[in-house]
Amino acid sequence: MSQNILESSDSARHARPLRHAQSVTLDEPLELELGGRLASVTVAYETYGQLNAVRSNAILLCHAISGDSHVARHDEQDDPGWWDILVGPGKPVDTNRFFVICPNLLGGCRGTTGPGSTDPATGKPYGRDFPTVTIGDMVEVQRRLVDHLGIGQLLAVVGGSLGGHQALTWAARFPERVQAVVPVATSPRLNSQALAFDVVGRNAIRRDPHYHGGQYYSEKHTPEVGLAIARMIGHITYLSQEAMTKKFDADRLRPRNVPTDFEKIFSVGSYLGLQGDRFVERFDANTYITLSMAMDLFDLGSTPEELAKTFRRAPCRWLVISFSSDWLFPPDQSREIVNALIASRIPVSYCNVQSACGHDAFLLPDDFPIYGEMIRAFLANLDGEQPVPVARDDGKSQGPTSIFHQHRLDYDRIVELTPASASILDLGCGSGTLLARLKEQNHRHLVGVELDERKILTCVSRGLDVVQADLNKGLGAFADQEFDCVVLSQTLQTVYDVEGVLTEMLRVGRTCIVSIPNFGYHRLRQMLTEEGRAPKSGGVLHYEWYNTPNIRFFTLADFEDFCRQKQIRVHRRIALDTEAGAEVFDNPNLNADLAIFVISRS
Amino acid sequence: MSQNILESSDSARHARPLRHAQSVTLDEPLELELGGRLASVTVAYETYGQLNAVRSNAILLCHAISGDSHVARHDEQDDPGWWDILVGPGKPVDTNRFFVICPNLLGGCRGTTGPGSTDPATGKPYGRDFPTVTIGDMVEVQRRLVDHLGIGQLLAVVGGSLGGHQALTWAARFPERVQAVVPVATSPRLNSQALAFDVVGRNAIRRDPHYHGGQYYSEKHTPEVGLAIARMIGHITYLSQEAMTKKFDADRLRPRNVPTDFEKIFSVGSYLGLQGDRFVERFDANTYITLSMAMDLFDLGSTPEELAKTFRRAPCRWLVISFSSDWLFPPDQSREIVNALIASRIPVSYCNVQSACGHDAFLLPDDFPIYGEMIRAFLANLDGEQPVPVARDDGKSQGPTSIFHQHRLDYDRIVELTPASASILDLGCGSGTLLARLKEQNHRHLVGVELDERKILTCVSRGLDVVQADLNKGLGAFADQEFDCVVLSQTLQTVYDVEGVLTEMLRVGRTCIVSIPNFGYHRLRQMLTEEGRAPKSGGVLHYEWYNTPNIRFFTLADFEDFCRQKQIRVHRRIALDTEAGAEVFDNPNLNADLAIFVISRS
Repeated sequence: MSQNILESSDSARHARPLRHAQSVTLDEPLELELGGRLASVTVAYETYGQLNAVRSNAILLCHAISGDSHVARHDEQDDPGWWDILVGPGKPVDTNRFFVICPNLLGGCRGTTGPGSTDPATGKPYGRDFPTVTIGDMVEVQRRLVDHLGIGQLLAVVGGSLGGHQALTWAARFPERVQAVVPVATSPRLNSQALAFDVVGRNAIRRDPHYHGGQYYSEKHTPEVGLAIARMIGHITYLSQEAMTKKFDADRLRPRNVPTDFEKIFSVGSYLGLQGDRFVERFDANTYITLSMAMDLFDLGSTPEELAKTFRRAPCRWLVISFSSDWLFPPDQSREIVNALIASRIPVSYCNVQSACGHDAFLLPDDFPIYGEMIRAFLANLDGEQPVPVARDDGKSQGPTSIFHQHRLDYDRIVELTPASASILDLGCGSGTLLARLKEQNHRHLVGVELDERKILTCVSRGLDVVQADLNKGLGAFADQEFDCVVLSQTLQTVYDVEGVLTEMLRVGRTCIVSIPNFGYHRLRQMLTEEGRAPKSGGVLHYEWYNTPNIRFFTLADFEDFCRQKQIRVHRRIALDTEAGAEVFDNPNLNADLAIFVISRS
Repeated sequence: MSQNILESSDSARHARPLRHAQSVTLDEPLELELGGRLASVTVAYETYGQLNAVRSNAILLCHAISGDSHVARHDEQDDPGWWDILVGPGKPVDTNRFFVICPNLLGGCRGTTGPGSTDPATGKPYGRDFPTVTIGDMVEVQRRLVDHLGIGQLLAVVGGSLGGHQALTWAARFPERVQAVVPVATSPRLNSQALAFDVVGRNAIRRDPHYHGGQYYSEKHTPEVGLAIARMIGHITYLSQEAMTKKFDADRLRPRNVPTDFEKIFSVGSYLGLQGDRFVERFDANTYITLSMAMDLFDLGSTPEELAKTFRRAPCRWLVISFSSDWLFPPDQSREIVNALIASRIPVSYCNVQSACGHDAFLLPDDFPIYGEMIRAFLANLDGEQPVPVARDDGKSQGPTSIFHQHRLDYDRIVELTPASASILDLGCGSGTLLARLKEQNHRHLVGVELDERKILTCVSRGLDVVQADLNKGLGAFADQEFDCVVLSQTLQTVYDVEGVLTEMLRVGRTCIVSIPNFGYHRLRQMLTEEGRAPKSGGVLHYEWYNTPNIRFFTLADFEDFCRQKQIRVHRRIALDTEAGAEVFDNPNLNADLAIFVISRS
């Protein structure tokens, strides 16, 4: 094993060398997953910050298809890195606190062994003889690098897109070597549309007459046109429709004045031509084929069962992030990962960040206040030191459905009602107040579901595991009887599909605790009867009829009738007068303003 | 001018000749919009059915980028046409009733003059000397063909995608020559993403070394690889993500055994390879460049104002159809067309058909029961003969919000309240019962808004103009004070954003008529007070608390308070006891079950 400061890459012929990259040659032969072997592998990497004495603060950052080891600038004079926004002193991946490692991928063209590297057997570049490598092979090389650096367990592996595939693979392959993973804008495998775009890109390269079957390194021309076409297709898929319209529609027929032989009649054409030409200057066509093929062959499982099996052995902590306008790695694919983790009872937080930026969102500042802060909060909670202050969600620490009165009497009772060490799902958990109380009781598996991304951020800051979902769309993420107890507190009245939500709760939880405001409460009845006005009250009922989130109007008696009709068993009913702070035993349908029901399917 | 049966196309070198195509050479020189001229143009076309004696039953069908004149089979033995599903005896475009004309486009390669045709000046194919043509030029050639056929006014022009662009252009250029237009899955101009894909496709063709600057007709090789790449990109954009997953995901790594030199590692790859190879056999690369460039240059206006100006002179009848999963020509672009028409007070119906099929939906059977029947109903109402039976929407001719009691007492009063010859917008119009009554009163401009596509189909069958929209998303389609009167009948209680909907109504209508159920009605109060149950009644209130579409609970007094607070002027209030069939004057908040308000902003 030899180590040296990398001066130039032997594969990327025109690319500027990476000033701060180090490299190490790992001499242990690498047996590849799909056959073949590499006698030795050189890895280029950059590091940031200091490894602490107990070697517990290392974070591995994984790059996407066109990235390299230069994830961030090393000093003010340095070139910006590809994830500068995230990595640096005081940034979410805080290099004052963490030791950051970012290697160039196996198969790459920026210092790590790839198709443009010299094949020791022939003394010439591998070219088409470079074997097919998988994400698993890439991660195996990274593991050897981590070994080389003397690090036993990584604090976290973080990556977006193809970098997310690596993070997922770390968790699946080396669960004991990672404490946490943060896969961003990624998928358990590519969908057919994403795969199709890659196929067309590779066809454009391979059928370029200058490809010469991959042995173009000594030729005058390389498959520049094919690679540029592939890159143009890629660029379209990285942006959203909305982002492209914003960027190009106003000056549609005023192309930028760029030196390119590609069509530049339209503004978007000049952009694509420039991107294609620039990419060719710094990237190798065989590497593009190698990495895109690794991505396309990546497959952690096509069914929920297969995926759950993949992650069963990965009980690290997870933060999964997707972006609403990402159509290359659509949010549903991140949800598949999250669902598989939940099915394996692995702690996970998930947020689908509202974004207009498409797949590239994870590299852009637009949505950084959510996804960046979420990564910061998640990482900061990992090492138990210096917890970050709990992020506030617009000044309200509670959602509209979670304040009834200042003191949540119903929470007191719900906490009492939950069996010891139970697994608990809190639907509509808001900023996590109830979950935080349950956590103090040492419940073993706590999951929150919430729709509002700022509330999710608050939960993550509190070290709680919360996944984003819309209750009205069902609880498909959760298996039958997965939880000892499912809680729905003062939320049922805000739900459109009441029957659907209750059916799903009762499927997922052995026991369910539902708290509801009672519209049969005498003061509310009075308002309608005597004043002829829609009932209104404090707490969840303080809204006007025209702007209240409460869209279901029912009494305790209505709810009990419903349970009878739908064969839902009521184990307990606790009726409360929250104003008086007391339980109600006399005519609860008239005298209670809130009730807690413990119910189950049988 | 000469006419002959077309025996073979001179441009598509490998394509099978179209057996039933006729052709006519129009000798009048064609001055092109962007400069240049063609001394004569040959047009290949096919016809179906019989032109009637008064020449009033002709429908022009316009094809998309890869189509030709063979829109449907001529007999059982004939090859299927590209829109066989729509055109034929007894089909929506019924050739027993209509005379159908389908020409190949200017610039095409299937019989009509295009880049592969012989340039009379040189005796060789035009190649790169073929001028840039526009959709306007294509439509001008079609107009000359229609003249040649002796047809003064077309009953309708129907087309999807690029065919839709032609239909739009017919309406904009020759409004006096078309009675109706049906643009399907189209747009006023391409968005930047769609344009970008076209740019990449053209780059792939033009930078193919076999392109020879467009003069490849006498060469051994044509730019087959480039054209195939362009076609592959196109194919991806024609399908939806969902459709691709369904088609390819299950046998992801089991490619079809097809003879292609393109990558066939993945199932989707073998499909794309085959599609690319097949296209090259029947299509000309220069035609692809010519037609896609015409599409990309097509631009009816980028702002609502420009679009409205474009269509101001096009007072024909319109049916606009889009598909929910079409991301190449997204539904919002069809809405831009619809909004411009509405702004110009031009009669239009619009439906965004729920579909999983993407852009190709308009050629596929999956959603045909909606879009096919809608085209049938629309065309059948045009000539005033043989109206089609009114389509039923699932057996219910009324929506849940439009039956209160059997006899709609509120409709009687609303009809009385509308000023004579007013322009009226009916929000949540259901199957059009109120609109049909207003139409009998000769109101001059009636527009319905409805969300349910089956109800829209019923409205179209009744000859009513209804556009699909979600009231909760605002009435952005309509200009300030565009209507004399806006009606919202028994719908406000189903709306989440009450204030938003009312604000929008009052912006769009000089006067608004709102009818609402009264939850202060004594029998409803009683239910809560005496029985302790959520109020329930007949008509719109016959649902259970957990499944009612009514999510806003308010009394007449609440509504009046609201109007006071929000500076809404109440001109009239008619309180009704619909059970008794009488108007209520004594304590309406207690004794009326329904009230009609006439309101305005000032």
